[in-house]
Amino acid sequence: MKIFDRPGFPNPARIRIVLAEKGLDTKVEFVSVDLIGAEHKQPDFLAKNPSGVLPVLQLDDGTYLSESTAITEYLDNLDGNPTLTGKTPREKGMIHMMQRRAEAELIDAVGIYFHYATPGLGAELQVHKSPDWIGRQEWGNKSGQKALAGMKYFDEVLKTRPYVAGDSFSMADITVYAGLAFADAAGLAIPEDATALTAWRARVAELPSVKNRTGQYFGSEDLRRLGF
Amino acid sequence: MKIFDRPGFPNPARIRIVLAEKGLDTKVEFVSVDLIGAEHKQPDFLAKNPSGVLPVLQLDDGTYLSESTAITEYLDNLDGNPTLTGKTPREKGMIHMMQRRAEAELIDAVGIYFHYATPGLGAELQVHKSPDWIGRQEWGNKSGQKALAGMKYFDEVLKTRPYVAGDSFSMADITVYAGLAFADAAGLAIPEDATALTAWRARVAELPSVKNRTGQYFGSEDLRRLGF
Repeated sequence: MKIFDRPGFPNPARIRIVLAEKGLDTKVEFVSVDLIGAEHKQPDFLAKNPSGVLPVLQLDDGTYLSESTAITEYLDNLDGNPTLTGKTPREKGMIHMMQRRAEAELIDAVGIYFHYATPGLGAELQVHKSPDWIGRQEWGNKSGQKALAGMKYFDEVLKTRPYVAGDSFSMADITVYAGLAFADAAGLAIPEDATALTAWRARVAELPSVKNRTGQYFGSEDLRRLGF
Repeated sequence: MKIFDRPGFPNPARIRIVLAEKGLDTKVEFVSVDLIGAEHKQPDFLAKNPSGVLPVLQLDDGTYLSESTAITEYLDNLDGNPTLTGKTPREKGMIHMMQRRAEAELIDAVGIYFHYATPGLGAELQVHKSPDWIGRQEWGNKSGQKALAGMKYFDEVLKTRPYVAGDSFSMADITVYAGLAFADAAGLAIPEDATALTAWRARVAELPSVKNRTGQYFGSEDLRRLGF
């Protein structure tokens, strides 16, 4: 299997954690896609994923799978022991509900803020983000506020249970965790009174599959291009 | 089990088709929520689903499940024979990928067009749709264009296989089907040259679970309030 992604970026991090959790790190070949150079918006990549986003999993028969939820379902079920997406109907339901909220209320909202209300990844990608749209800055800011409200929501959830979808670590935790890392990079801090969310984050950071995943950091070339 | 929804509306239709497909219609009690009166944006409903959208499934122990993907996972797995969400890792991966595209590129895009670029469901709901946002009309129109591009995308997909995610009818087909019904209501017609999509739609309309599902039409009171 091949994974098309880029080290250090938020949605690629989701699948890197899944791979570590499932012990599949060494079973895949990573192919780096230049996000800052908008390689994922060019015809070669769009043939792999028409939505133009990372990561993409290529199966050994050539089939491309995109969308982190779909790649997670695939990888989590390979060994017949779906720990991240749920075993019972109820677990599956709860995980998919919280997963969808983690996307809509957090990681996707942060992404819109980052790409529309800030300089994002720079000039080459900005041309793909409706630069002429008069409403873009206001839309980005509204989405940043939505992300902050999402953090408050997950804080309330994590007052009542140890993980986002219940008693065990799941796909929904991975999405919230990656969403918070993206929020850091975008300049959206967790509200100070969201202590349950902050405590959960510290706990999740110490899980082996999170602590030891590959692709923790941006590459040096990407850091330079991002102005660090 | 209880389903909180409203007959005739697009996301409720998704779960009504799932219920028919799984033979569960008679196992649930339907509770009607007044979408036109914005009942789903009031505190009583937000306590059931903080995202403020329909449908919501209440389990017999009182637990609320929202998000159509999550409700479908729950209902489809109850009998241990998940025909709509996939049995093998590969089926699950393909269905969740196409499902996510069906939401992002079609049904959610139509929803944004409907609620932001048209009068939507009327005055009571409009106050929950950022009426003061200067970019709202342009955002709605951009989203309408996205939905039309999504139809062209699914037309291409359906030139290569009988159903949206492969050889059999799945959750992704249900989402595209409901998305097209919503597009009709919003005034977004399928492009004339999208013949594979149009043929697929006619075929899906004849499937027993689609043809015989409950809640096919708006109630007479809703029709009157919508100006028919």
